Amino acid sequence: MKLKPLHDRIVIRRVDDEDRSPGGIVIPDQARDKPQRGEVLAVGPGEPLETGQVRAPAVETGDVVLFGKFAGSEVNLDGEELVVLKESDVLAIINA
Amino acid sequence: MKLKPLHDRIVIRRVDDEDRSPGGIVIPDQARDKPQRGEVLAVGPGEPLETGQVRAPAVETGDVVLFGKFAGSEVNLDGEELVVLKESDVLAIINA
Amino acid sequence: MKLKPLHDRIVIRRVDDEDRSPGGIVIPDQARDKPQRGEVLAVGPGEPLETGQVRAPAVETGDVVLFGKFAGSEVNLDGEELVVLKESDVLAIINA
Amino acid sequence: MKLKPLHDRIVIRRVDDEDRSPGGIVIPDQARDKPQRGEVLAVGPGEPLETGQVRAPAVETGDVVLFGKFAGSEVNLDGEELVVLKESDVLAIINA
Amino acid sequence: MKLKPLHDRIVIRRVDDEDRSPGGIVIPDQARDKPQRGEVLAVGPGEPLETGQVRAPAVETGDVVLFGKFAGSEVNLDGEELVVLKESDVLAIINA
Amino acid sequence: MKLKPLHDRIVIRRVDDEDRSPGGIVIPDQARDKPQRGEVLAVGPGEPLETGQVRAPAVETGDVVLFGKFAGSEVNLDGEELVVLKESDVLAIINA
Amino acid sequence: MKLKPLHDRIVIRRVDDEDRSPGGIVIPDQARDKPQRGEVLAVGPGEPLETGQVRAPAVETGDVVLFGKFAGSEVNLDGEELVVLKESDVLAIINA
Repeated sequence: MKLKPLHDRIVIRRVDDEDRSPGGIVIPDQARDKPQRGEVLAVGPGEPLETGQVRAPAVETGDVVLFGKFAGSEVNLDGEELVVLKESDVLAIINA
Repeated sequence: MKLKPLHDRIVIRRVDDEDRSPGGIVIPDQARDKPQRGEVLAVGPGEPLETGQVRAPAVETGDVVLFGKFAGSEVNLDGEELVVLKESDVLAIINA
Repeated sequence: MKLKPLHDRIVIRRVDDEDRSPGGIVIPDQARDKPQRGEVLAVGPGEPLETGQVRAPAVETGDVVLFGKFAGSEVNLDGEELVVLKESDVLAIINA
Repeated sequence: MKLKPLHDRIVIRRVDDEDRSPGGIVIPDQARDKPQRGEVLAVGPGEPLETGQVRAPAVETGDVVLFGKFAGSEVNLDGEELVVLKESDVLAIINA
Repeated sequence: MKLKPLHDRIVIRRVDDEDRSPGGIVIPDQARDKPQRGEVLAVGPGEPLETGQVRAPAVETGDVVLFGKFAGSEVNLDGEELVVLKESDVLAIINA
Repeated sequence: MKLKPLHDRIVIRRVDDEDRSPGGIVIPDQARDKPQRGEVLAVGPGEPLETGQVRAPAVETGDVVLFGKFAGSEVNLDGEELVVLKESDVLAIINA
Repeated sequence: MKLKPLHDRIVIRRVDDEDRSPGGIVIPDQARDKPQRGEVLAVGPGEPLETGQVRAPAVETGDVVLFGKFAGSEVNLDGEELVVLKESDVLAIINA
């Protein structure tokens, strides 16, 4: 992975909603601001706290997660659309 | 449960308002932003604090709770409409 | 009481303003956003602090309190209109 | 006093601006958002801090204070118009 | 001085801008929101901190200061126009 | 480098998006608020924390980073357009 | 210098943008909200922290700095236009 996210940011590749595995979640295309599924490709070192400590991330590379449709920033890496967002924009991990 | 919520998020399945048990609460359908009832299906590990600690959740799986109608994000898992919201959006637990 | 409020939330039953006891407070009906009287029916365990501690509630069940007219969320429990609000929305306790 | 204010709230009875004692302050009636004078009737236990401590109030019952005209909430107790506001809305104590 | 400001508030008497001493500052009357000069008449005990401590004030009675034209609240004490503002609204002390 | 950024600010020189090395990222010109690539020319000493400590920067001179198109302030140094932004505006480091 | 800035404020005299030394930065006059150059004339004792400590300033008298065009407050001292701003409005120090 060429992107190394800073702090509590993570890099995600959207998972096709038509592909209903692994969680079987179907989100209608016309839905506005409905959460979307994505696979975590890279995870930053964690959120820096006011105490000077760093909070360990709660997701890891390979996790399939639910995140807000309009959360984060889209980047195009080698022709592939990725999303860089903060861990706090992740709603839940979808168990395989 | 296929969803594993992060931090202080919880997953809820709405409980039909017409079904007046267990709390007997009736909320007119046309009500705007009135709290709704739901059953807690999954609970995250708790809210991360600035001190680096984690606050234990105050609800648990199986609780029937009141929450704001427009709180959280709706997701459709295997054809069932669920809501992912933060524990702070829960107003009260309805005792059985 | 069937509702168990979370954190620093409390459940209140409005007290009829026409009934001038116990505090003798009269608030004209047409008043906009004037405080209202209510009896505390249930009290949450207290406000969670960033330190991980919990602040003990300052009101208790049975207290008659003044609170903002539009504070909190209205719920209808067994046909009775109740209000779930945060303790910080309570202005004062009315001594009997 | 029938009202027991919570936390850092205080109860105030407006002092007639035409009566120029004790501070001799005159504030034209048509002034918009000019501070007003009032006598402190009741004082809450103090502001709860994030550390779990309580900050002792800086005003006491009997103080005549300056406060913002539109600060706080007006309540009518036994026919008398009172104001419940936060200590932080008090600008200064007027020395007798 | 009849006013005893609370916390980090101070009481100021505007200094005539036409009088160019002591700092020689001239601020055109038509200027909008330009800082103004004033003499500090009274100083509160200091800003209360979240730790429960009090921060000592950085100005003292007799200081001539620059402050925002629309900062604070104007009060009329014994016919004299004064300003009650927070120390954080003071930009600088003008050395004599 | 003539600019010495303060605190958690960094100085960046935009990298031509047509040049697809080193990360191969292509961001269409007409994109609105899409992240852009830039090379870090200078890094401040780090973000000052409320505790009085300083958080060490997470980027270093020479890093190629992704940052928000409209983040920071543009400055023109010796005819070259640079951007001064906060480290928190950096999304990710692009590995060479 | 007649002005003694409070806390984390500093006093700046704008440096003519036509004069391209020392940093050689040219900022077109018609630019909106582009940073400007200025020389630091006076520095306050530092930002007071919530802990009660004071953070030492990161700039010193004589520094030439970049700051936001509309940051701070303009004052006219002895016919000279100065700017009082907070250190956090300073983007970078320009090395001579």
